[in-house]
Amino acid sequence: MSEEKVLKIGILKNGTIGTSLLLPFLIDERAESKRVTFREVTSGPKMHPPEQCIETIKKLIEFNPDLILMASPNAALMGPKMARELIGDIPTIIISDSPAKKAIDEFKEKNLGYIIVECDSMIGARRPFLDPIEMSLFNANLLKVLSITGVFNIVVNELNRVIIEFLEGKKPELPQIEINSKKASDAAHFSNPYAQAKAIAAFELATQVSKLTGKACFVLNEKDEYMPLLAAAHEMMKTAADLCQTAREIEKSNDKVMRTPHKSSQELLIKRSLYEKEQ
Amino acid sequence: MSEEKVLKIGILKNGTIGTSLLLPFLIDERAESKRVTFREVTSGPKMHPPEQCIETIKKLIEFNPDLILMASPNAALMGPKMARELIGDIPTIIISDSPAKKAIDEFKEKNLGYIIVECDSMIGARRPFLDPIEMSLFNANLLKVLSITGVFNIVVNELNRVIIEFLEGKKPELPQIEINSKKASDAAHFSNPYAQAKAIAAFELATQVSKLTGKACFVLNEKDEYMPLLAAAHEMMKTAADLCQTAREIEKSNDKVMRTPHKSSQELLIKRSLYEKEQ
Amino acid sequence: MSEEKVLKIGILKNGTIGTSLLLPFLIDERAESKRVTFREVTSGPKMHPPEQCIETIKKLIEFNPDLILMASPNAALMGPKMARELIGDIPTIIISDSPAKKAIDEFKEKNLGYIIVECDSMIGARRPFLDPIEMSLFNANLLKVLSITGVFNIVVNELNRVIIEFLEGKKPELPQIEINSKKASDAAHFSNPYAQAKAIAAFELATQVSKLTGKACFVLNEKDEYMPLLAAAHEMMKTAADLCQTAREIEKSNDKVMRTPHKSSQELLIKRSLYEKEQ
Amino acid sequence: MSEEKVLKIGILKNGTIGTSLLLPFLIDERAESKRVTFREVTSGPKMHPPEQCIETIKKLIEFNPDLILMASPNAALMGPKMARELIGDIPTIIISDSPAKKAIDEFKEKNLGYIIVECDSMIGARRPFLDPIEMSLFNANLLKVLSITGVFNIVVNELNRVIIEFLEGKKPELPQIEINSKKASDAAHFSNPYAQAKAIAAFELATQVSKLTGKACFVLNEKDEYMPLLAAAHEMMKTAADLCQTAREIEKSNDKVMRTPHKSSQELLIKRSLYEKEQ
Amino acid sequence: MSEEKVLKIGILKNGTIGTSLLLPFLIDERAESKRVTFREVTSGPKMHPPEQCIETIKKLIEFNPDLILMASPNAALMGPKMARELIGDIPTIIISDSPAKKAIDEFKEKNLGYIIVECDSMIGARRPFLDPIEMSLFNANLLKVLSITGVFNIVVNELNRVIIEFLEGKKPELPQIEINSKKASDAAHFSNPYAQAKAIAAFELATQVSKLTGKACFVLNEKDEYMPLLAAAHEMMKTAADLCQTAREIEKSNDKVMRTPHKSSQELLIKRSLYEKEQ
Amino acid sequence: MSEEKVLKIGILKNGTIGTSLLLPFLIDERAESKRVTFREVTSGPKMHPPEQCIETIKKLIEFNPDLILMASPNAALMGPKMARELIGDIPTIIISDSPAKKAIDEFKEKNLGYIIVECDSMIGARRPFLDPIEMSLFNANLLKVLSITGVFNIVVNELNRVIIEFLEGKKPELPQIEINSKKASDAAHFSNPYAQAKAIAAFELATQVSKLTGKACFVLNEKDEYMPLLAAAHEMMKTAADLCQTAREIEKSNDKVMRTPHKSSQELLIKRSLYEKEQ
Repeated sequence: MSEEKVLKIGILKNGTIGTSLLLPFLIDERAESKRVTFREVTSGPKMHPPEQCIETIKKLIEFNPDLILMASPNAALMGPKMARELIGDIPTIIISDSPAKKAIDEFKEKNLGYIIVECDSMIGARRPFLDPIEMSLFNANLLKVLSITGVFNIVVNELNRVIIEFLEGKKPELPQIEINSKKASDAAHFSNPYAQAKAIAAFELATQVSKLTGKACFVLNEKDEYMPLLAAAHEMMKTAADLCQTAREIEKSNDKVMRTPHKSSQELLIKRSLYEKEQ
Repeated sequence: MSEEKVLKIGILKNGTIGTSLLLPFLIDERAESKRVTFREVTSGPKMHPPEQCIETIKKLIEFNPDLILMASPNAALMGPKMARELIGDIPTIIISDSPAKKAIDEFKEKNLGYIIVECDSMIGARRPFLDPIEMSLFNANLLKVLSITGVFNIVVNELNRVIIEFLEGKKPELPQIEINSKKASDAAHFSNPYAQAKAIAAFELATQVSKLTGKACFVLNEKDEYMPLLAAAHEMMKTAADLCQTAREIEKSNDKVMRTPHKSSQELLIKRSLYEKEQ
Repeated sequence: MSEEKVLKIGILKNGTIGTSLLLPFLIDERAESKRVTFREVTSGPKMHPPEQCIETIKKLIEFNPDLILMASPNAALMGPKMARELIGDIPTIIISDSPAKKAIDEFKEKNLGYIIVECDSMIGARRPFLDPIEMSLFNANLLKVLSITGVFNIVVNELNRVIIEFLEGKKPELPQIEINSKKASDAAHFSNPYAQAKAIAAFELATQVSKLTGKACFVLNEKDEYMPLLAAAHEMMKTAADLCQTAREIEKSNDKVMRTPHKSSQELLIKRSLYEKEQ
Repeated sequence: MSEEKVLKIGILKNGTIGTSLLLPFLIDERAESKRVTFREVTSGPKMHPPEQCIETIKKLIEFNPDLILMASPNAALMGPKMARELIGDIPTIIISDSPAKKAIDEFKEKNLGYIIVECDSMIGARRPFLDPIEMSLFNANLLKVLSITGVFNIVVNELNRVIIEFLEGKKPELPQIEINSKKASDAAHFSNPYAQAKAIAAFELATQVSKLTGKACFVLNEKDEYMPLLAAAHEMMKTAADLCQTAREIEKSNDKVMRTPHKSSQELLIKRSLYEKEQ
Repeated sequence: MSEEKVLKIGILKNGTIGTSLLLPFLIDERAESKRVTFREVTSGPKMHPPEQCIETIKKLIEFNPDLILMASPNAALMGPKMARELIGDIPTIIISDSPAKKAIDEFKEKNLGYIIVECDSMIGARRPFLDPIEMSLFNANLLKVLSITGVFNIVVNELNRVIIEFLEGKKPELPQIEINSKKASDAAHFSNPYAQAKAIAAFELATQVSKLTGKACFVLNEKDEYMPLLAAAHEMMKTAADLCQTAREIEKSNDKVMRTPHKSSQELLIKRSLYEKEQ
Repeated sequence: MSEEKVLKIGILKNGTIGTSLLLPFLIDERAESKRVTFREVTSGPKMHPPEQCIETIKKLIEFNPDLILMASPNAALMGPKMARELIGDIPTIIISDSPAKKAIDEFKEKNLGYIIVECDSMIGARRPFLDPIEMSLFNANLLKVLSITGVFNIVVNELNRVIIEFLEGKKPELPQIEINSKKASDAAHFSNPYAQAKAIAAFELATQVSKLTGKACFVLNEKDEYMPLLAAAHEMMKTAADLCQTAREIEKSNDKVMRTPHKSSQELLIKRSLYEKEQ
C-alpha cells in the first residue's frame, strides 16, 4: 500500500450509543497511526429536530472526509435519515442499535455500510431515575459489555479492513452486519469456553435491557410502574458488565488475553501471552 | 431567566480524557434540555501536530458558540495552547488532567476557566499492551471512578452554574478548580461514611495510576520492565472502579443514592430515595 | 374453621420443573401442619409415553385426595393432558412452565386452577453438556431464583388460600395465574427498592434461559453450535441466582427479611426483623 | 446385557433430605434412559406417625418395583423402620443422613444397602426462623454442596453400578457406604487440588451445620438463644455452597470440569474439556 | 485511681497463637497509654525443650512485672508448665488454645487466670505445605477471625478490667474463661443480627480447622492423605476470615461499627457512628 | 556447614510494623529448625521515651545473641538510635519502614544491615478511629500484603542467606535493601503475569496508605477532616489485601503456588505444584 496516503475519516454523532463513544480510538488506540486522521462533528445528546443532524453533517462534509462513519441511536429516525441525504457519494457506514433494523432496506438501496449492535441497549431515560451519574455508569457498564463480548472486535476488524482497502487503493466493501451474540463471541476468540459462555450470557442480558427500558420509557406512565423496570434494566447492564469482567479475568488467569493492537501503518497485530511479542 | 434564550455550547476535544468522554451528556443527560444546544468538533485521538487542534477549533468557532469547553490531555502542550490563541473573547473552560497544572498561570492570565481532574490518569499506551479492547476497558473503569468519586458531580455543578448564569444574562464566573479526592468526595454527598471512604480510596488509587503509566511510557525502554507496570496500572484503575461500585452498592442498600437530574429548563433537582420525587 | 378436618393433598409429578421440586414443603415447611397431609406419586424424569402420566395419576387417585396438584413441564403435552382426563371432579391445580400457556383455554374450560411460572426455564438437556451434576446445579440455581424473586411467595399464598378455603368448608377459588416478574417481585415485598430491582432483573434473566436452551435442544444440530448456547444458558441461571442472593443479602443487611412461616393450623404468619415475633 | 430388560425402580420418600431431592434425575438426568423407569411415592414432609411411611411403602409396592430406594431423614426412626418391615425380599437401598448410623447394624442384618451422607445436615426448623423461602434456600445451597463436593458422584456411581448389575442379570451388590469428605472429594475427581481443598472444606462446613441446628431445635428453648444458632447454621450452608461454586469455577477456568452423562443404555460416559466428546 | 501508678505488664510468649500475636497492642493500640508499660520476652517458634520456656520466663521476671501474661499453644505441655513453676506470687494469666483445657484444674489450683480461645486453631505445620508465606497468610486470616468474631473484645475487656483493678489498688479478679462462639459474638455487640450470624458461623468454622490440622499433623503419615486436609484446613480459615469481613462490611454499611478505643488513662470508651464522639 | 553450630538470634522490637510481627516465624515457620534459636525482647507499643528501647536492648544483649534483628517503625527516631549505640560489635540488621530512610547514612557508616519496606505503612492512629479491633484488622490486611507481594520472600531470602553464611563460618554480608514493588514482586516469582500485576498494584496501594495516615495524624487537627482520610487509608489497606488474595487465588487455580519451606538444617526448599515434592 502507498505509504504516503493518509485517510481522512469523518465521524458524525447525533445522540449517543455505546458503540460510538470511543469510535476513533478503536481505530487508533494509542494516537500513533500514520495512515488515518479523524474529524468528528457531533450535536451532543440531541438528534431532534432533524436540523441537529443536518447542521452537523454539513459541517463535517466541509472537512472533505474520504469515509464517513455516522453513529446515532435508531438510525431509522428522521434526523439521521435526512443527514444521509446529504452525504453525496462519500462512502459511509451507519453505526446504530436495534431499532435501526427498520432502515436496513434503505441502507442497502443506498449502498451504505451498516453495523447494528443488538446489545447496545437504550438507557433508562426518565427524569426520576436518570441523572448525569446514573447515565455515566450505564455507559461505563455498556462499554465493558461491548469490549469483552466481542462487539468491538467486530467493529475494529470491519472498519480496519475497509480502511486498509482504501489505503491500498481498492474500492472497499462496506460492512453490512447485524451483531448478535454468536458473531460477537466468535470474534472475541476466547481461549476458555466458559469465558465465552459468560460473554454470550452477558450479551443476551444486555440485549434484553432495551425491552425493559423501552416499556418504561414509552409504554408505562405511572412512576410506580416504570421505576422498578428502570432500576432493573440498569441492574441488568451492571450484571452483564460484571459477568464480562469475570470472563476476562478467566482469560487473564490463563495468560490468554487476546490483544490486537494496531501498527502505526494500521495493520492489526495479535498476541495472547502478556510477554509475547505482538505479530 | 429568559425562557427564550438557548445557549449554544461548543465543545472541542483533541485526544481524550475520561472527563471529556460524556461531556455534553453530563449537562443534558436525557436529551430533554430546552435551554442548551451542543456542537462538538474533535480530532479524535490526535493532538499532535498542533494543526489537529487548530483546524478543529476553527471549525468549532464557525458554529458561533456562546461558551467553549476545551478538553484534552495535558492542556499545557503546544496543540491546545495554540487552539487557545484562537478563541478570541468567547468564554472558555479548559478541561484537562494533572499535567495541565503547568499551564494554570496562563489560564488565569487569559481569564479562562479550568477544571483539572487529578484522578483522570493517563492510559498505558504502549503497543504490546494497549489494543482497542484494553483501551476501552480502561475508559470504562475510569468512567466509573469519575462518576462515583464525585468528580462528575463537581463538573456538573460548575458547568451548570455557569450555564444558568449565562441564561440569566449574568456574566458567568468561570470555574478555576483542581479536583482532588476531598473536593470530589464532598461533592458526591455520600450518605454512608464508609462509602465515602471507599470513594476517597478509589480516587487516590486512580490518581496514582499515572505515576506508573508515566514511568512505563516515558522512562522505561525494556519491555520486561514496562509491561508489569502497565498491567499493574490498569489493575489499579479496575480496582478503583470496583471499589467505587461497592461504595454505590452501599448507598443503594440504604436507598440513599443521591440523584441530581436536570430539569428541561436546566436547573438541577435532587432526590435520595428511589421512589421520592426529585425537587 | 373446623379443627378436626385434615385436608389430603395429592401431588402428581411427571418430569420436573423448579416450582414442583419442593412443592409439599412450601405448604408445610417444618412438618408441623395439623391440617394437611400429602400423598405424592411421580414417574421421575419421564412424561412420555403418556402411560407414565396415566399410571401415576391412577395410583394417586387411589389415595382419595381432596385436592390435586399436577406438576410437569409443558402441561400442554399429551401425557399431562391424558392425566387430566382422569381426575374426575377432584379440584385440581396445574403447575407448569411457559409452554403450558398453549393449554390455558383447556384449563379454563375444565375449571382447573393453574400456576404458570415464566422464569421456570428449561434445562440444557443435551448429552455432551448435561450430566447429573450439571443437572443438579441448574436446579439449585433455579430454586434460588424461584425463592427470592417472589415466585414461591405467590405459590405459597395461592395454595394456602385454597387450602384454608377448603378447611373452612368453602368452595375454593382455584388460582389461574401466569407469574411474571412484576407479580413475583410484588409478592416478595422487598423492603429495599434496589433489592427488588435485582430480583426483577434475575427473573427476566432466568426467563430468557429457555430461549437459549430451546434453540440449543430443538433447533441446532451441530455440537459446535449448541454447546456455547447451553453453557451460556446455564451461566445465565447461575448469574440470576447470584443476583438473587445479593438481593437477599441487602434485605439481611437491613434486618428486613420478610418471613412468612405457617402456623400448625396453616395460617401464614409474618415478620421482618429477625428477633421480632411472627404474627 | 439384555437390551429388552427395563428396570423398574421404586422410590419411597418420607420427609426430605438433600440427597433425595433429585434422586431419579441423578439416574436419568435427561429423561432419555431406555433401561430404567421410576415410580415414586412420598408422604411429603411427614414421617410421623409411622402410618405416613407405612401407607406410602404399601402403595409403592403395588407398582412391583425391582429395586427400592428408601429416602428419609434419620432412617433409625420408627416410621422408616416400620416401612422396612414391609419390603419383603425386594432389594432395597436406604438413603439417609448421619442419625441413621444408629440403624446400620439393622441394615446389615437385613442385607439392605445404605448410603449415609454426613454433610446432608438438618435444616433449622423452628417457626420464628424457617418459612417456605428460607426452607427452599437452604435446600438450594445444600444441593450445591452435594453436587460439587462429590456426594452425588458417589450416589450416581453406586446406584448406576447396581442398576447395571441388575440389567446384566447379576445379583447386585448393594452399596453400604457412609459418605465423608474424603470419599466424596475423591469421587469428584477434581483436576485442581485447591478446588478439591475448597470442596473438602465445604463438606466439613456443611457437616457441622447439624451440630448447630440440632442444638437449636432440640436443646435450647429460649428464642434469644436458638435464633442466632439457626441463622449461623444457614449462613454456614450458604458459605459452603458459595465455596463449592468457587471450586467449580476453578475447574471451569481450566476447562477441566468432569462430566459423566448417562447413555440411554445407562452406562456412564466421561469427558473433561467442554468441546471434547464424552466417552 | 492513683494517677501516678504505672502498671508494668510482663508478657511471655513461647511458640505462637493468634491471640498472642498483638497482645500488648490490644491494651495500648495507639501507644498512648500513660498507665501501663510492657516488657515482653519470647523464645520465638520454639516451646521445646522446656528450657526455651524456662530461660525466657526467668529473663522476664528480671523486669519485675506487676502482672504476667503467658501465651503459648497448648499450655498443658511441659515447657509452659515448668515456666508456671517459676512465677512465684506474681499474678499471672495464661492465654492459650483448646488443648490447654487439659490444664484447667492446675490453673485453678494455682489461682492463675486463663483465657482459652476455642477458634484459635493449630496451623497446618507440615513441610510440603507450610512455608513462611502460607504461615503468614494463615495468621492474617486467623487475626481477622479473632478480631471480628468478638474474641479480641473479650480479651480486651477482661485484661482491661484486671488492669484497672490493679491501678485502683484493688486485688484483681483474674479471668477464668473459655471463649466459645456465643460468648465471643455477644461481646462483639453486633448491630445487625445477620452480621452476628456470620461471625458465629466463622467462629465455628475456624474452630473446626484444628480437627483437620490435628489429624493431618499427628495421625496421617502419607503425603497424599494429609495434604488435602491441610489445604482444606487453610481454606477453612480463609473462608472464616472472608465471612468475618462480610460481617464487618454489613456493620459499616449501616454506620454501626462498634469502636472501643482506650483513653490514655486506660478506660475503654465506646462509639458506633463513625463521626460520633467516643464516650 | 558444621552441623553442631546453633545460631542464637536476638530480636528487639520497639513499637510494631507489619514486617516484624512474625519475624522469627519467617525463619522457622514450623518450629523444626535445628540450627537457629531465638530470644526476643520487646517494649510492646512504646518506643518513647528512649528508655523503652535502651532497657530492652540491654536485656536482649544479656542473652548473648550471635545476630541481632532490630525492628521498629521509623528507625531514625531517638529510641532506636540510642539502642543502636549499645549493640557493640554484634552483627545487626535494622528492619523498619520508609521514614527510616533518613537514617540510611548512619546505618552504612556503622556497617549495619537494613531492610526498609516501603509498603509497610503507618496505621491510622487517632482515638476516634483506632480501637483494638481496627488496629488488629489493619495488621491482618498488612500481613496479607507483605506475604503475597513478595516482601516476605525478600526478608526470608536475605535473613536466611545471612544465617547460612553464619552457620558456614563465613563473615556474613548483611543486607542493605529498600524493598519497592518491583523487587518484591520479582522475589514472589509469580507464575501468572496478571497475578504479578495485581501484586504490584497492591504494593503501590499499600505504600500510599501512609501518605493519608501521615496527613491525618500529623497535619490535620479537625476530626471532620482527618476521619475521612483515616477511614479511606484503612480501606486502601483492605483493598490491597483483597487484591493480593485474588493474585494468590490465580496461582492456586493454576496449581502454581510457589512454596519455599525451610529444611530443619535451614536451607530453603522450593516447590510449585501442591503434590510435588519440595526440593
